[in-house]
Amino acid sequence: MSRVSYVNGAYVHHCEAMVHIEDRGYQFSDGIYEYFAFYNRTLVDAGLHFKRLERSLAELQIALPMSTRAMAIVIRELIERNGREDGGVYLQISRGVARRDHAFPKQVKPSLVITVCGSKLPSEDQLKNGVKVITQPDIRWDRCDIKSLSLLGNILAKQTAAEVKAREAWLVDGKTVTEGSASNAYIVTKKGELITHPANHAILGGITRDVVLKLARKHKITVRERSFTLAEAKSAAEAFMTSTSANVLPVVMVDNQRIGSGKPGPITMQLQELYAKHIFKQTGKRI
Amino acid sequence: MSRVSYVNGAYVHHCEAMVHIEDRGYQFSDGIYEYFAFYNRTLVDAGLHFKRLERSLAELQIALPMSTRAMAIVIRELIERNGREDGGVYLQISRGVARRDHAFPKQVKPSLVITVCGSKLPSEDQLKNGVKVITQPDIRWDRCDIKSLSLLGNILAKQTAAEVKAREAWLVDGKTVTEGSASNAYIVTKKGELITHPANHAILGGITRDVVLKLARKHKITVRERSFTLAEAKSAAEAFMTSTSANVLPVVMVDNQRIGSGKPGPITMQLQELYAKHIFKQTGKRI
Repeated sequence: MSRVSYVNGAYVHHCEAMVHIEDRGYQFSDGIYEYFAFYNRTLVDAGLHFKRLERSLAELQIALPMSTRAMAIVIRELIERNGREDGGVYLQISRGVARRDHAFPKQVKPSLVITVCGSKLPSEDQLKNGVKVITQPDIRWDRCDIKSLSLLGNILAKQTAAEVKAREAWLVDGKTVTEGSASNAYIVTKKGELITHPANHAILGGITRDVVLKLARKHKITVRERSFTLAEAKSAAEAFMTSTSANVLPVVMVDNQRIGSGKPGPITMQLQELYAKHIFKQTGKRI
Repeated sequence: MSRVSYVNGAYVHHCEAMVHIEDRGYQFSDGIYEYFAFYNRTLVDAGLHFKRLERSLAELQIALPMSTRAMAIVIRELIERNGREDGGVYLQISRGVARRDHAFPKQVKPSLVITVCGSKLPSEDQLKNGVKVITQPDIRWDRCDIKSLSLLGNILAKQTAAEVKAREAWLVDGKTVTEGSASNAYIVTKKGELITHPANHAILGGITRDVVLKLARKHKITVRERSFTLAEAKSAAEAFMTSTSANVLPVVMVDNQRIGSGKPGPITMQLQELYAKHIFKQTGKRI
């Protein structure tokens, strides 16, 4: 089955999926995106993703190209046409095509592009035994809360991680760990408190983050949404990261410093299991 | 004559000029650009622009898609095909097309896109009487020295300026004016010293900036490359901005505060004239 993508109203062969060179997404990174996971052809937390998408668009004053309800129908159709049971949906909206000029064009129709790909879940070994992360200075702009296409700071950090075979780069602003290049970052203190950076302008408030914090609170884990330092991280009892594609992934090493015992901690593994149940409830899939 | 653009090896009708949706320029703003002015079909300071282009690419570890010499030939041909005597050339290089993943793809061919447009020179009135600028917080990332496609911070500032009919937004980091959203910023003190932010990671070192500073020094104007505060700007004797499309443009008002007498100052106008001569020498065009 060949790959099919959706571009501005049409389902097209992926290799023929094109946008205009003056699409402002291409020239200015003037747009936003979302990434959904799906299992058994069912999106995980679709409502939360669409809500964040609407917020990102509103922050950039970009109009919705169609209702989120219509988008959900297009996504379902695209998953069908790609013949996948499990995988990921990447959806991008830019301000649209206009003669190049920094200020917003007066009349412009937003562009909508959707692709479907295979699952990017971490390996069983990674989920069970954890991964290592490195740290990089957080050089990104001050509106990381917008899930925008301005991702150069993120990809440079991720590339540095990839070069040393680390799963992720945690970004450090001053002494504070903000988040990963494409995931949120957490530590568990020796007292058993779960710490993660507050969802302000400095980080992208992950959907998996929201769900995991809710599950933690429900199960009487103390959650502190406050910034933590790199030194705190290195002396933490546990650490982990979350994202739509990584789920709850234990972090056992930060910059070659073993975290806790060097093995995934009990709170991390509890949350991983709770999150797996959360997915099962919505999609019927055991991961 | 219809508009013709260059896309990855082909001269195409502009309305059919397309790139793939998984071009990393579109999904990650993973690329760089240059903008050249031309008069009498001759590029202004082509060598300096190509040098900066090579630096931007090197900083992002993107290969040159072809030699800059070959690019110059393509540009000349494109100007010809568009039948323009004077105007601008926009050239964009992205890392290329690859399945979406933050880290750099292993094997990828950079994308090269070039468009030609009409001149964007300020009006005669603006060049003679000056323009007003507003200020906005500088929320951009820490590598503004790379002329990258990550321009969301720039366009949001420029849009705010456009909404109040200001020519430009000067960006303020703490108390310091770094630069404009798409231009460099200068003041002249009451002592007659020309001040502009040093060309470090916080600003994009403009080609017009380099040329104007060289011309200033040659004509015995004292140049200080140091940061200046917004308060200094507001009490300066003169102010102006430079860019490839604005040349040397007097700034007579900052945030509704008149600068100096409220009219373009003598050093600004001297530099505007010197820059016009610089263009005349290269292209034979009087602007």
